[in-house]
Amino acid sequence: MTTVPEQYKDILNSKSVAHIATIGPKGEPQSTPVWFGWDGEHILFSLTKGRQKYHNLIRDPQIALSITDPKEIHRYLEIRGTVERIDEDPNLDFINSMANKYLGLEKYPWDQSGDERVVIVVKPEHTTHQG
Amino acid sequence: MTTVPEQYKDILNSKSVAHIATIGPKGEPQSTPVWFGWDGEHILFSLTKGRQKYHNLIRDPQIALSITDPKEIHRYLEIRGTVERIDEDPNLDFINSMANKYLGLEKYPWDQSGDERVVIVVKPEHTTHQG
Repeated sequence: MTTVPEQYKDILNSKSVAHIATIGPKGEPQSTPVWFGWDGEHILFSLTKGRQKYHNLIRDPQIALSITDPKEIHRYLEIRGTVERIDEDPNLDFINSMANKYLGLEKYPWDQSGDERVVIVVKPEHTTHQG
Repeated sequence: MTTVPEQYKDILNSKSVAHIATIGPKGEPQSTPVWFGWDGEHILFSLTKGRQKYHNLIRDPQIALSITDPKEIHRYLEIRGTVERIDEDPNLDFINSMANKYLGLEKYPWDQSGDERVVIVVKPEHTTHQG
């Protein structure tokens, strides 16, 4: 189903952050770390509609993510793909699940009323890796 | 001289890796972790001339790097800029200095004869940060 090699799936189940590369309004690359989830087929992460990354991905759905192995500095997985869909997250279910994964909390602690949260769903199309 | 805020310079002096975002041959973003150095004004990292990232940067010198604080997961610095110059590294001085920073070794242990190493010198033009 996916193009991710079996021997790198441990990195997808780790608590490393993913650094996402997107294309900005002037065609320039941008890079940001994000909390991510993996459903066995897609990479998922949360954004608010106010973030530049959100606007970048609406304009150009191409994306790459690199994730290092938290236990071994030389080992990493890069996933390139496109945004397959963008889901609304009105009840904060997804961002709460990320707070649980990364902080061990039931709820995301920094929600600001008025933030419209979405879930970016990325379909992997190509990978590179090392280590 | 630089656009990097003082309160984030500790991240530039940390042993975190930098995730570099470049533009690939089809206009797609690519992301890879690299060892990096900071000379007080530029970000520096090593590539071999065979690497796709090298060809990407020859074609399009725009680059972004994001680096997380190794001590605090939410804190990061993103630097966007352009490749100011590419230096040859015939005696491996630069890659050896990186092996010293990241591995505590005198020499880079994985040199392959025939690899032509260069130092990518990035001039910061814009930063984003969090935490």
